[in-house]
Amino acid sequence: MIGTERAVPRKRLTQEERSERSRGIILRAALKLFSTVGYHGTTVRDIAEAAKVSTGNVYHQFPDKESIFRALLDEYFEQVASPEYPLNKALAAGAFPNDMAALARAARESVAKYRPYVALIYVDVVEFDGSHIRRFYSEMADRFGAFLAKHGPELKLQNLRDGVRPRTAMMVATRFFLQYFSVEVLFGVPNHFGQETEPALAEIVDILERGMLQRRP
Amino acid sequence: MIGTERAVPRKRLTQEERSERSRGIILRAALKLFSTVGYHGTTVRDIAEAAKVSTGNVYHQFPDKESIFRALLDEYFEQVASPEYPLNKALAAGAFPNDMAALARAARESVAKYRPYVALIYVDVVEFDGSHIRRFYSEMADRFGAFLAKHGPELKLQNLRDGVRPRTAMMVATRFFLQYFSVEVLFGVPNHFGQETEPALAEIVDILERGMLQRRP
Repeated sequence: MIGTERAVPRKRLTQEERSERSRGIILRAALKLFSTVGYHGTTVRDIAEAAKVSTGNVYHQFPDKESIFRALLDEYFEQVASPEYPLNKALAAGAFPNDMAALARAARESVAKYRPYVALIYVDVVEFDGSHIRRFYSEMADRFGAFLAKHGPELKLQNLRDGVRPRTAMMVATRFFLQYFSVEVLFGVPNHFGQETEPALAEIVDILERGMLQRRP
Repeated sequence: MIGTERAVPRKRLTQEERSERSRGIILRAALKLFSTVGYHGTTVRDIAEAAKVSTGNVYHQFPDKESIFRALLDEYFEQVASPEYPLNKALAAGAFPNDMAALARAARESVAKYRPYVALIYVDVVEFDGSHIRRFYSEMADRFGAFLAKHGPELKLQNLRDGVRPRTAMMVATRFFLQYFSVEVLFGVPNHFGQETEPALAEIVDILERGMLQRRP
């Protein structure tokens, strides 16, 4: 194939397309590095080498290393806010409060799919004292509130027992399952409750349902 | 005071005491660096400079950087296993299942007191793919089981409702509260459930109690 590449250009990219493409390649390389050797352990030169571009090209796209890191967190927050994020899909389908096993499965899928981005959160907590992600977490309750304001009427929230506020209960369940599967997926410890995931989840779902739902007559 | 220090040696340290002391100083410096700039972002030279010792001194105490990191994780695991660890104190006093607000306070104290060590867990997850902490987490359920075998009779576990296994329920509560306060203490987001800690905990404790305990007549 050597020598033919120049001869048969499939498609000429515009300047803007090339720039967008190289920005994407740089971000993918940076995500891999930041999420495995940390922020301070990664240099702009490392990123350029991994992306197979010049450092000049990196600096053409981003003013500095920190703005690459921020761009990756922004990508993640955008995904987490999207209706396509597995946890959001499950919530919109009524997994809370009426099928918490489905909520758990969606939490697992969310962590597995975005594993390197979840690692970036840890990197931010350690190396930036949480300063980039603080706003995201401090607005978390508001996002759940907005979600409930929009989807509440479809969710059969009347199944919650008196005194249980939907937002708190929804956060307890989702935060718990995300953490459970972070240990499984990111820490690499599959059965940290001392039993297989399915029976462990069945016990946990039973506790949450009894804690949150009306008693069936 | 300059010039008097040599003249009035308070106490002559033995070779062994000096070595132990310098080992401790190196570990404190390394903990601060690893927990704020990560493992790959820290060099042995950085540690020596922060500890105000020579790199030769560091290598006299530790064969390499990774063994310093491992020694710090071992320190933490020893603390977490000790009866003095705030969460263990609360558990031994019966906070689970009969005073989960006290369990929550103990979780907060545990995270606040060992904050830099909790950060090391994140560093291990990111930079070592969790390889140092995996065993600790995979043995977690066994440790809770052993704790229950030892302390169970004193804990009024008969208050748990039928079908709720003590170990699972104890892990659900402790893991949840540790995670809640990790967001508060390490991520720097105090009210991430959208309200002050006390009322948020009251709602959460109510859900857990209803989920785990017998219904009072």
